[in-house]
Amino acid sequence: MLSAECCHSLRHFSFTLLPVNAEIIAVGSELLTPFRMDTNSLFLTEQINQLGVEVVFKSVIGDDLQRLVAAAQHALFRSDIVIFSGGLGPTEDDLTREAVAEALGVALQRDESVLAAIEQRFASRGWKMSPNNAKQADVLDGAVVLPNPNGTAPGQWMSGKFDGRERIVILLPGPPHELKPLFEAECRERLRLKLPPAFLATRVLKVAMLGESQVDARVAPIYKRFGEVQTTILAGQGEIQLHFRSRAGTLDEAQARVDEAADAVEEELDDAVFSRNGESLEQIVGYWLQMRNATLAVAESCTGGMLGERITSVSGSSRYFVGGAIVYSNAAKTDLAGVPADMVERHGAVSREVAAALAEGIRYRCESTFGVGITGVAGPTGGTAEKPVGLVFHALASDGGTEVIERNFPGDRKRIRRFATTLALDMVRKKLM
Amino acid sequence: MLSAECCHSLRHFSFTLLPVNAEIIAVGSELLTPFRMDTNSLFLTEQINQLGVEVVFKSVIGDDLQRLVAAAQHALFRSDIVIFSGGLGPTEDDLTREAVAEALGVALQRDESVLAAIEQRFASRGWKMSPNNAKQADVLDGAVVLPNPNGTAPGQWMSGKFDGRERIVILLPGPPHELKPLFEAECRERLRLKLPPAFLATRVLKVAMLGESQVDARVAPIYKRFGEVQTTILAGQGEIQLHFRSRAGTLDEAQARVDEAADAVEEELDDAVFSRNGESLEQIVGYWLQMRNATLAVAESCTGGMLGERITSVSGSSRYFVGGAIVYSNAAKTDLAGVPADMVERHGAVSREVAAALAEGIRYRCESTFGVGITGVAGPTGGTAEKPVGLVFHALASDGGTEVIERNFPGDRKRIRRFATTLALDMVRKKLM
Repeated sequence: MLSAECCHSLRHFSFTLLPVNAEIIAVGSELLTPFRMDTNSLFLTEQINQLGVEVVFKSVIGDDLQRLVAAAQHALFRSDIVIFSGGLGPTEDDLTREAVAEALGVALQRDESVLAAIEQRFASRGWKMSPNNAKQADVLDGAVVLPNPNGTAPGQWMSGKFDGRERIVILLPGPPHELKPLFEAECRERLRLKLPPAFLATRVLKVAMLGESQVDARVAPIYKRFGEVQTTILAGQGEIQLHFRSRAGTLDEAQARVDEAADAVEEELDDAVFSRNGESLEQIVGYWLQMRNATLAVAESCTGGMLGERITSVSGSSRYFVGGAIVYSNAAKTDLAGVPADMVERHGAVSREVAAALAEGIRYRCESTFGVGITGVAGPTGGTAEKPVGLVFHALASDGGTEVIERNFPGDRKRIRRFATTLALDMVRKKLM
Repeated sequence: MLSAECCHSLRHFSFTLLPVNAEIIAVGSELLTPFRMDTNSLFLTEQINQLGVEVVFKSVIGDDLQRLVAAAQHALFRSDIVIFSGGLGPTEDDLTREAVAEALGVALQRDESVLAAIEQRFASRGWKMSPNNAKQADVLDGAVVLPNPNGTAPGQWMSGKFDGRERIVILLPGPPHELKPLFEAECRERLRLKLPPAFLATRVLKVAMLGESQVDARVAPIYKRFGEVQTTILAGQGEIQLHFRSRAGTLDEAQARVDEAADAVEEELDDAVFSRNGESLEQIVGYWLQMRNATLAVAESCTGGMLGERITSVSGSSRYFVGGAIVYSNAAKTDLAGVPADMVERHGAVSREVAAALAEGIRYRCESTFGVGITGVAGPTGGTAEKPVGLVFHALASDGGTEVIERNFPGDRKRIRRFATTLALDMVRKKLM
């Protein structure tokens, strides 16, 4: 067990043996319902990985003292760094402090300066502190108090030997807007000082409108050539992300490794790569439009506003996005985007001709450099043998003419609409490159 | 340890003591990166809760045999039902079968009929099975094989005594589209037969545009009156969900309890409750529009299409949604929604007057029963002292006139846009009720 004494004498140890492993424990019964997930661990994993440390276990445990103590003991036995999030509140259900104290075999001491800070926090809002808040000032004997400017419960940092093994234990508040700044301000540098120097470089390439297996088959042989670069492929909604990470003794060395691997992959995938440093497709399209001093307008049928929503999710998009029309009914196609009524009659609302007329009509109406038109069958109803669910026409009009791409997308309504808007954005990008 | 023999003799035991606890273990190193989360456990928790069983631990473990064995042993020691997801694939990293066999102390046997089914699956696609796939036919000695129509790896079900305690161990494939149907078809009923009869009834009320603390203060005294109903409050993006769950020996009894509690809460919150059975606000608005035989058109500035996107996320929305205009530039406000150019000059694009003119203009242009106009400052740039980031005007035009609501929303661009579209939808709902 960790005594207060040995803890004091060992507060300045550093890990000397690699690899150092970390474990994250999220505390709270609400995280064991079907409605809530522990998302703090994604942030913490990223931060810890950047210090050269792998996360080898994550768990979620409810507000139950006996279970928490047992889990804390297991964690202290198997992992070098153990991070708890949550369970530091003022209620009877908040048991992280008590459980960790019991697992470590140390006492909890009420810290008068922490108590004063909590009282002050209430007073500054004109409130009186209720007595149960006092337990938030209980500190593990030998721990460093980590100030929490965004909440009442401070974090705690404890390092020392547990059953003869060097361990770091960190207690963090559960709300993400408290946990994240607290970790960045109080834990990152403290951890770095304990760990062997390691530098992590990362790159993200993004690819639009290719299948995961298609991309995988093309990049797998390249990955093999770069054994010291860790690669991850993530696919979703018409976009594939290729993550590259490498650790080395200097940042330059790590960066050179990931750049070499990423450049080789980019050469293979050519213009399917829309982003070289993690930017979104919406941002890249906005970037190119500004570069070319061009403007964009859209006319959307089956996507119902999603394309406009995605374009305007980027702050400053008013510099290149004029606006557009949501042409859900046939009348709206004619009234708002100038599609001839007899064209809809003749070819149907979902047709190559109407897509082109939407793009041209909205470009003319909005006096923009480019006009985009989308029309299709998002489903799940409304499909026919000739025009099945998933069939979408995408048109891009410019002063050089109008191009139309026809696609049959798989998946549900949400996926089909997402695919269609991604393809339309990618048409604009390729036109501008 | 669980021998094949005792397993056979005990395959038909039932739990006799309450409460029965479950634990979920997600296996896979990719779930320990910053990029992926275990979401299967949300589905499994919901399913297991419905059988009257609490989930008391969730964990994520990488593809490491030693760690998996140790974790499986801990889980078998402390939990009655242990469910593994993932790690059943054909690669060297897929170790769940081996780890569980070692933890239980039973052998793995290659099952010839499973092997034949896997070979057949490959053959039916015209592929030859590669030899590493054969390990997917390895079955825990004494386990029931659970067919997986959506993938090559079958699930496995094992029940018996472990160190003198009654235990159920379930192995499920990781991909959600394999895990979910397999659990529903093969595990739910098997579990129900083992468990004491328990019926779970649930209700979800949804509330728009009230603060979480505001709702909490009003409903907390009511919750206290219904001790046998478990309540959860979830807040996000302008919407609050109040979940009610109760277990009883009959479904009628459980349902009566949650209904009584939900009805009391609904009486307190009155028309702020937009949904009584979990429907989305978009669905409820669509429902009311159809009930009243009415149509809707929208003109969006700062939300850039998000309102249209939300309305058209509902299949069949073409029955009541005509379309609208995305009026990001001042010219588009005039050209597409008929806002007088001098009005924008005089009052500014973000003003009560322009919001009303957008609603009226798009209603006139689209010949719809109702017109909605939204204009505001979504930020993070573009705010002024007079018109700060978060200021949004929402207008609803009908033949009874036009109403405008002004709000200052907190948060970032995404939250502000989400709040604004929620408020606009809620205006339509209240008008129709």
